[in-house]
Amino acid sequence: MTVRVGVIGTGMIGQDHIRRITQVLSGGAVVAVTDVDAARAGQVAAGLPAATVYPTAQDLIADGGVDAVLVASWAAAHEESVLAAISAGKPVFCEKPLAPTEGACLRIVEAEMAGGRRLVQVGFMRRYDAGYHALKAALEGGEIGAPLLMHCAHRNPSVPLYGFTTESIVSDSAVHEIDLVRWLFGEDIVATNILKPRRSSKGSAELHDPLIVLLEMASGVLVDVEVFVNATYGYDIRGEIVGERGTVSLGEAGGAVLKRDGRRSGDVPADWRERFSRAYDVELQDWLKAVAVGSSTGPSSWDGYAATAAVESCLEALRTGERTAVSLAERPDFYAKEQ
Amino acid sequence: MTVRVGVIGTGMIGQDHIRRITQVLSGGAVVAVTDVDAARAGQVAAGLPAATVYPTAQDLIADGGVDAVLVASWAAAHEESVLAAISAGKPVFCEKPLAPTEGACLRIVEAEMAGGRRLVQVGFMRRYDAGYHALKAALEGGEIGAPLLMHCAHRNPSVPLYGFTTESIVSDSAVHEIDLVRWLFGEDIVATNILKPRRSSKGSAELHDPLIVLLEMASGVLVDVEVFVNATYGYDIRGEIVGERGTVSLGEAGGAVLKRDGRRSGDVPADWRERFSRAYDVELQDWLKAVAVGSSTGPSSWDGYAATAAVESCLEALRTGERTAVSLAERPDFYAKEQ
Amino acid sequence: MTVRVGVIGTGMIGQDHIRRITQVLSGGAVVAVTDVDAARAGQVAAGLPAATVYPTAQDLIADGGVDAVLVASWAAAHEESVLAAISAGKPVFCEKPLAPTEGACLRIVEAEMAGGRRLVQVGFMRRYDAGYHALKAALEGGEIGAPLLMHCAHRNPSVPLYGFTTESIVSDSAVHEIDLVRWLFGEDIVATNILKPRRSSKGSAELHDPLIVLLEMASGVLVDVEVFVNATYGYDIRGEIVGERGTVSLGEAGGAVLKRDGRRSGDVPADWRERFSRAYDVELQDWLKAVAVGSSTGPSSWDGYAATAAVESCLEALRTGERTAVSLAERPDFYAKEQ
Amino acid sequence: MTVRVGVIGTGMIGQDHIRRITQVLSGGAVVAVTDVDAARAGQVAAGLPAATVYPTAQDLIADGGVDAVLVASWAAAHEESVLAAISAGKPVFCEKPLAPTEGACLRIVEAEMAGGRRLVQVGFMRRYDAGYHALKAALEGGEIGAPLLMHCAHRNPSVPLYGFTTESIVSDSAVHEIDLVRWLFGEDIVATNILKPRRSSKGSAELHDPLIVLLEMASGVLVDVEVFVNATYGYDIRGEIVGERGTVSLGEAGGAVLKRDGRRSGDVPADWRERFSRAYDVELQDWLKAVAVGSSTGPSSWDGYAATAAVESCLEALRTGERTAVSLAERPDFYAKEQ
Repeated sequence: MTVRVGVIGTGMIGQDHIRRITQVLSGGAVVAVTDVDAARAGQVAAGLPAATVYPTAQDLIADGGVDAVLVASWAAAHEESVLAAISAGKPVFCEKPLAPTEGACLRIVEAEMAGGRRLVQVGFMRRYDAGYHALKAALEGGEIGAPLLMHCAHRNPSVPLYGFTTESIVSDSAVHEIDLVRWLFGEDIVATNILKPRRSSKGSAELHDPLIVLLEMASGVLVDVEVFVNATYGYDIRGEIVGERGTVSLGEAGGAVLKRDGRRSGDVPADWRERFSRAYDVELQDWLKAVAVGSSTGPSSWDGYAATAAVESCLEALRTGERTAVSLAERPDFYAKEQ
Repeated sequence: MTVRVGVIGTGMIGQDHIRRITQVLSGGAVVAVTDVDAARAGQVAAGLPAATVYPTAQDLIADGGVDAVLVASWAAAHEESVLAAISAGKPVFCEKPLAPTEGACLRIVEAEMAGGRRLVQVGFMRRYDAGYHALKAALEGGEIGAPLLMHCAHRNPSVPLYGFTTESIVSDSAVHEIDLVRWLFGEDIVATNILKPRRSSKGSAELHDPLIVLLEMASGVLVDVEVFVNATYGYDIRGEIVGERGTVSLGEAGGAVLKRDGRRSGDVPADWRERFSRAYDVELQDWLKAVAVGSSTGPSSWDGYAATAAVESCLEALRTGERTAVSLAERPDFYAKEQ
Repeated sequence: MTVRVGVIGTGMIGQDHIRRITQVLSGGAVVAVTDVDAARAGQVAAGLPAATVYPTAQDLIADGGVDAVLVASWAAAHEESVLAAISAGKPVFCEKPLAPTEGACLRIVEAEMAGGRRLVQVGFMRRYDAGYHALKAALEGGEIGAPLLMHCAHRNPSVPLYGFTTESIVSDSAVHEIDLVRWLFGEDIVATNILKPRRSSKGSAELHDPLIVLLEMASGVLVDVEVFVNATYGYDIRGEIVGERGTVSLGEAGGAVLKRDGRRSGDVPADWRERFSRAYDVELQDWLKAVAVGSSTGPSSWDGYAATAAVESCLEALRTGERTAVSLAERPDFYAKEQ
Repeated sequence: MTVRVGVIGTGMIGQDHIRRITQVLSGGAVVAVTDVDAARAGQVAAGLPAATVYPTAQDLIADGGVDAVLVASWAAAHEESVLAAISAGKPVFCEKPLAPTEGACLRIVEAEMAGGRRLVQVGFMRRYDAGYHALKAALEGGEIGAPLLMHCAHRNPSVPLYGFTTESIVSDSAVHEIDLVRWLFGEDIVATNILKPRRSSKGSAELHDPLIVLLEMASGVLVDVEVFVNATYGYDIRGEIVGERGTVSLGEAGGAVLKRDGRRSGDVPADWRERFSRAYDVELQDWLKAVAVGSSTGPSSWDGYAATAAVESCLEALRTGERTAVSLAERPDFYAKEQ
């Protein structure tokens, strides 16, 4: 079954989700869009095989051909769309935040409970990151004993000069860690605090950047989050959970680093599936795309021939113990060098 | 357009490609299968929405509803299927090797040229790996100057005790590096040699494992490949290109490491798209799957509410400079703990 | 000139300094010792070429043959010894802390100033660590711009069950970072605070371990120090300075890691002196020790011969392009295998 | 006992050993020097407390006040000096190579045996490197099972344009690995070979750089050594031993990396002695040097006072749970800021 998705909000993040459903993932199709900027919605729809443009979120949700709704409008508009989707009994994926106030969130919670069925998913995507999964697995596998504290850093190269306030550092940036630690530790945050280091001269004069956000979990685990939105050097997400018997942290180049029993260690892949699964995905996706447009981009018959010729040379060298020349036929123009 | 794929060979790798087309990627559907083991082909087809089982590769290729062919049968059978696909004018993705002998490969090359159109892609999937792409980018960007030599290691935890010979170390394992270095350096291999280190006692008594495969490129670049198929400790793929001005190598945990001008360095992601693109893909794919079966797995409305409550607490702490408690409503059973 | 040192306090750290002066460093000799435990002082002196045992620190300091004094007694006794050394006009190296109270420290400061000459050095040895030197160099070289905050972790595998209190976590452990950040940033600490994460069940019931110690520098730089004295897994010292343009941190296996301009990087040694200076030191120290006792431990004439034989074989291979056997004379028993 | 050393050859390496004995190590003193360039020998002696300059190596060795001899002259002169030292019954440390030909080496071996006592140590200093020690320990501890092969890289940033030949790549550079692998594996090299990758355009036109040197050990272990003497980017020494059950390699920033059982790991220091032993050495050496010249360089009484004041502030914060200001006395000029 293909899930027919209606997208509310066709700005940057909405367009990115549309690209994902249409070009990257299996099992979904975007069949309807709407945006406060009707022209933008129209342009986005024009790039899709068959998508209806609706004037309002309500209209889109009412379309019987829309199985599920993706909300990527601005935060203040989330509540209305999500409530409408719940009312229509349709699953809804809502970008974070669910809504900008506790009150609005509780109204959504109550509506969903009244409907008797879980319909809402919020876009906290760090829960889907392989590195954080490795942290959670180490934690739940008892690798580091009881967790005591966690250090996080959340660094953006820069944020827009206008419209991004000191409050945004919390509500737009730290909110990711706020959800993440609830998921990692499986418990709620009971208190918070904010420390203010020396402020960076980058960014607007009103911005106090960086901040240290302190989150106290119900069990007493203390989380400190450095949030630095004009770090300039790159996008850098760090995390280390310190437990009674060791620590586990996000590796610098992926994966997780475990410190325990006098050793600092990381996984070696178990097999080629683990190591190269992405490469297989990309390979076959590229082939499907090329076939669909009648082109050809990957390793050719000629490459297959050249590899086999070299293998035969190696096997001869294996038999003889001698250096063995590889002789190839002349390369036809037909197989001009790949890029 | 959805590419309708016929799959020849439904063993392990064939099934994996079917899963990929059906559950992971967009734009493709498996509509036909065949296998020398008809029962296996039937079982695989039963798990698909609508796939015809054919007795032979020829029959499958002849099906007008098959747009493109994926060959995942055993190597000796590749030539016949690929030639038939070419003859039918259909694009064909053929698992490596294209064919086990130079002669067979050349017959494919000639048939494809006679048809006047590139139809064949060979399954050398390392060309699609992000790490090797980073190496090629560094090389072509002039980061390390002219390449002089390359060290590779290709280690499998183990291979089957029966049927995997010393020759297989070359033709099944080293063949990946053989294609890879042609692609990386954009030139052919002109000679090969094999060195035999002390053999491991793991694996069958007939197996000489590990080997060092030497590949001489046309420009004089010398590549040494340690191939060790019973390395026991994991699957480990290493590569370092040494150039006149520096070296670039596959990082241990992903990415690439550049050594130049007295520094050893790796990339920090430029932004959140680069760092978390996979997490976004997985997140939305999981949502589509859950919606399709009417379930719900990701962050809930409750999680959205709890995050917003913590954000409000942080904003209060930001205003007051004081530790601020978070007060949450009682969690309803409706939102029982995830995981 | 050899500096003749008198050592006050011959416990663990005192004995370690004596070993260092006697067996590792040049230019010093231990000529006098004293300890509250006279028997222990006597045993330590017995292991030295010519050291007088004194009943009291005063007596030791009064010895005209003592050029300089090293104080390694317990903290409460430091003040008296240091004041006596100042009074005698003798340089004094005092283990940290200088004294356990501000008042005692100020009395030492005043005595030293009254004497008109700097005589006291305090044993804050992190200022001599290569890793921290690399951090300071990066900071002062402007590599990361103005410093804004610093994260530290100070983890001991364990501390004694008795006698080590929550206060000791600050005064014995965090005191290292307290001195270090004054030195790194070249400014004073203006305020402090302590956060209490969930406590570890390791260690005594009275101990609140770990702690987060917050240090505010005069410029506003905020330093957070996780001090965890029963971390179990090892001794782990971490530090990362975050600046306006990048960060610099202690590398996991030595050196420093710089993050700047989209790259994460570390030094490659500039030459063999930098890479192997310690090996040269150890090599020659071992030779001097062996010569002094008439033994022989390092690479022998036979090793020199075997290396030259292999070099000659390589040179033959270079000339001929062929594998060349190395033929060695029979190894005499005289050159039995080194361990 | 202080070993009185006579140094033959006061060029770069000879002067470096003299500095080491005089300023870094304990237990030795340089009492005599000689050089073919008598003026240079005189200048070097002038910088020493009490060293006699001799016209010839023979004269130096004959001096009854010379306990042991260090040979750092050019390779062709080693044999004569070493034989003379043996003849005089004096221990001799000879820089590598012991002698440039097998014949000369064997004459030394025979003379030493005739004397009945081991007197000669050859300057293969990699045997004293902590990284290689960790490799040998892992190997001998059975961590990686039986060794099968080893990959080495030996890269210099550059070598002099004149006088350094392709043969020197073997005899000056690869000779280090040649001795090292004999020591690591505890067995002899039975055959060698040389491979020639594409040559770098750096360096003289006659130089074939880099080379791959192949060393076959008696057990069948195969060692490949990339020697690249104009690598430009830095001095980089790599080594990985591949065994039946795992691999162990020199870490990029020190230490060793073990790959085994699906994990890649390195040591965390066991305690502060291991982590900071060098800092303690440097600290006390600096103090001894400062005392000897009547100066003062390290952490002062003022630093001791400031640290204690901050500790007291932290202890107050610990008691009260509140941010606590640190109040320091005014810093006297007497304690002007350290460098």
